[in-house]
Amino acid sequence: MTQTVENSPLYKIANPQSIAFFGASNRYTAMGTAILSSVAGMGYEGRVYPVHPREETVLGYTAYTSVLDLPETPDLAFIVLPTHLVPEVIEACGRKGIKQAVVVSGGFKEMGADGASLEEKLKSAAAAYGIRFLGPNCIGVVNTHRKLNATFLPCENPPGFIGMASQSGSFITQMFAYLQRFGLGFSTGFSVGNEADIDIVECMQYLAACPNTKVIGLYVETIRRGRDFIDAARRIVPQKPIVAFYAGGTEAGRRAGLSHTGALAGEDRVYDGVFRQSGVIRAQSIEELFDFCWCLGSCPRLQGNRVVIQTHSGGPGAVAADACARAGLDLPGLTRNTREKLADYVPHTASMKNPVDLTFSKKQLEYFIDIPSILQDDEFADALLVYLMMPRRNIVLGMQEMGIAQEEIEKETEKFIDEQARRLADKMLNAPKPMVGFSYYGPESRFIRRLYEAGAPVLPGPNRAANALGALLRHKALCSKIAGT
Amino acid sequence: MTQTVENSPLYKIANPQSIAFFGASNRYTAMGTAILSSVAGMGYEGRVYPVHPREETVLGYTAYTSVLDLPETPDLAFIVLPTHLVPEVIEACGRKGIKQAVVVSGGFKEMGADGASLEEKLKSAAAAYGIRFLGPNCIGVVNTHRKLNATFLPCENPPGFIGMASQSGSFITQMFAYLQRFGLGFSTGFSVGNEADIDIVECMQYLAACPNTKVIGLYVETIRRGRDFIDAARRIVPQKPIVAFYAGGTEAGRRAGLSHTGALAGEDRVYDGVFRQSGVIRAQSIEELFDFCWCLGSCPRLQGNRVVIQTHSGGPGAVAADACARAGLDLPGLTRNTREKLADYVPHTASMKNPVDLTFSKKQLEYFIDIPSILQDDEFADALLVYLMMPRRNIVLGMQEMGIAQEEIEKETEKFIDEQARRLADKMLNAPKPMVGFSYYGPESRFIRRLYEAGAPVLPGPNRAANALGALLRHKALCSKIAGT
Repeated sequence: MTQTVENSPLYKIANPQSIAFFGASNRYTAMGTAILSSVAGMGYEGRVYPVHPREETVLGYTAYTSVLDLPETPDLAFIVLPTHLVPEVIEACGRKGIKQAVVVSGGFKEMGADGASLEEKLKSAAAAYGIRFLGPNCIGVVNTHRKLNATFLPCENPPGFIGMASQSGSFITQMFAYLQRFGLGFSTGFSVGNEADIDIVECMQYLAACPNTKVIGLYVETIRRGRDFIDAARRIVPQKPIVAFYAGGTEAGRRAGLSHTGALAGEDRVYDGVFRQSGVIRAQSIEELFDFCWCLGSCPRLQGNRVVIQTHSGGPGAVAADACARAGLDLPGLTRNTREKLADYVPHTASMKNPVDLTFSKKQLEYFIDIPSILQDDEFADALLVYLMMPRRNIVLGMQEMGIAQEEIEKETEKFIDEQARRLADKMLNAPKPMVGFSYYGPESRFIRRLYEAGAPVLPGPNRAANALGALLRHKALCSKIAGT
Repeated sequence: MTQTVENSPLYKIANPQSIAFFGASNRYTAMGTAILSSVAGMGYEGRVYPVHPREETVLGYTAYTSVLDLPETPDLAFIVLPTHLVPEVIEACGRKGIKQAVVVSGGFKEMGADGASLEEKLKSAAAAYGIRFLGPNCIGVVNTHRKLNATFLPCENPPGFIGMASQSGSFITQMFAYLQRFGLGFSTGFSVGNEADIDIVECMQYLAACPNTKVIGLYVETIRRGRDFIDAARRIVPQKPIVAFYAGGTEAGRRAGLSHTGALAGEDRVYDGVFRQSGVIRAQSIEELFDFCWCLGSCPRLQGNRVVIQTHSGGPGAVAADACARAGLDLPGLTRNTREKLADYVPHTASMKNPVDLTFSKKQLEYFIDIPSILQDDEFADALLVYLMMPRRNIVLGMQEMGIAQEEIEKETEKFIDEQARRLADKMLNAPKPMVGFSYYGPESRFIRRLYEAGAPVLPGPNRAANALGALLRHKALCSKIAGT
């Protein structure tokens, strides 16, 4: 990885200072208009030059009749035009000196022989002028750190750390809301479309060098350059984990991929082999892909397979124990030292085995602070899994007990929850060992929402949390394997 | 199933007209007080008699010094007292003529020899007076149809159709918020605790006869009466599906169960065998248990394994196809007749294969109405899986296009979304074949929230939707097997 991010052909695609935009108009339902609305909506700070044969302004931006009339040579051409117009527009861009493009337009190779021939024309035109491009038949690019959202759907995510390259545009755009729920976002997301020029391997290389990206996610329907994929991944993985979801493992999945992007997919075991050889962690669903990315991107490296589970509810503890065992994790007993330190905190009903089932805490205020610290210090623990819930009503009852005035209780309850979340998130994010929360509660719970906002990994349910810890373990094993060969 | 619901020992536990409540006070943090707060909070309409040695009123209810002083013989005694007091209180209840009890108090068999001996005393006292009881060491009971929530956490769920019996109280109470997110609720939920008297088999039988229950969910750490469980389940399943999650499949899960409820669990394959013989569908996680219950309780029976997938996004379509194949479902091609009927609705970019990838619809207003109807009429389709998303911003752009006044757009957009959701939900709930939605969007999307509120099954993601359809298929197979033996 000697490549710097600025040297990548994708640098000015993900970080353009100026964009020539083809295909937006003042007709609101046009795809191009929707994308330009997204660009404006996220507050992109670069210069935008709509090119339109008739309009004087487009969505408030001054429009130009021809790309040749633009007052500067933009970093990027963004093209959402009818298919047959694309090659000549690329040529005009080339004459203007533009070196990067994103082609959203579809109707190329994925539509059969005529489309394939148009795609060849597009490639020749681009090659003639040294233009590198993403697409065609893609959904665009998002970079939360540059407030650049050149895609079909609005993006309100905070700056994120998951770098994504996807052979389906939906798994960029339609994940915005999904990731936002957890306080997550893409560092940069690329929809690669037909990969006529830039492909998923180059996206991986860019994301590997991108300083905002902590982990790389891939949605794969086919890998076109197998050897290059493996070589690139093996160089990246020791520095930055890669997680992939592959959709073509079954005959039905392969047929769907074929009509979606013309992907010629292979059998499950072939791709299993490619990923294993590459050091890439395979996820079994899109949700799992993001679970894995979340934990790999926010936890320190896992050093071994021994996990301690903290719970105050027996059932969720038992389910987590079962899920951990299925994910290849061991549950060691606690050391005597740990048990002695815990004694002050736990009632006689507690179980000091693993899962540590506290049933409730004698010092409620320290439940999510001191106890995880003690457990994490246990010399046999490589990771800590903590069951999280904080029922508001019962905190209100506690406030009443303490004699807090009725009109203050709401405010005090929220203050208490926020403070607990703040301190716990701080602990989770600065822990020397992976510390992952799990809960059946989601953002409708203020406690969980605050943890998400603070960036703490709190997985939805014990199985997903255990599998995510399993991914950390898998990453360690894959790194060792790469180092050993 | 000749048993009627009124004949079950659980009838007056789930439907009491009056409750003697032991262990609530005006000390807000006491477990009993929290439970009585829940009873009051959900608006229970029966009579409540707190029994307390000193208080004159408890949470506003008139309190009584002794159960013997109550003005009537209540249907139910609800006991949240220190362990050692429980046997004598049960005896007093017996003298008053009470015939049903719930014992929340812990500290019995799960705590070792002394506790076991107290549990024997409790059983003798109950037996002497013919009292049937749930617990000890349980979290209570909830019946959304009676506004009865006698548990530790508030329940704001609508009247539901999932009957649940759980060997962990958490999987009753801590699922309230989880289920509420999807517009679901328990018809009745029983936390069975140590099963000293009434056990999970009797709960199943009650739920089988309960008219509000469409499907039965079980959380199992151990099955104490194997033969009876199998016999009961086999009688129930042809009328009402049963789904179980088993936590003791691994050594770690078994150890956790042992310290949680003293459960002596068995190996995975043993329980697999028991469930198969019983006709019970096994879920691999708690979330999956509720996914299965959701679809089994709201879809008509599945007649075969052929599913048609409708999408307007290639990626989610491909993932759904792959997930369906893994769940044992086939994806037939569309009949010529179906393709002809679709022609009016779909653009040239659409794929008429299966998944049917519409890319977009020429008649947007009918996207979720006419197209699913056409696909569902296909003679080769046994079920329909529909990808659901409705990005608000793009509807707003459409409204602008139509020239709707800026100040009306917000209202018109919401009206449009609500109307689409209403019509789609109506279609889904009245479909002659199972019709299941899937989405990466959750309740933060108005469209999805409205579908949940209307009771439409919209699973979070394609894998969960495909697995739920797989559960419908499994139910069919299990019923055939029972009928054939």
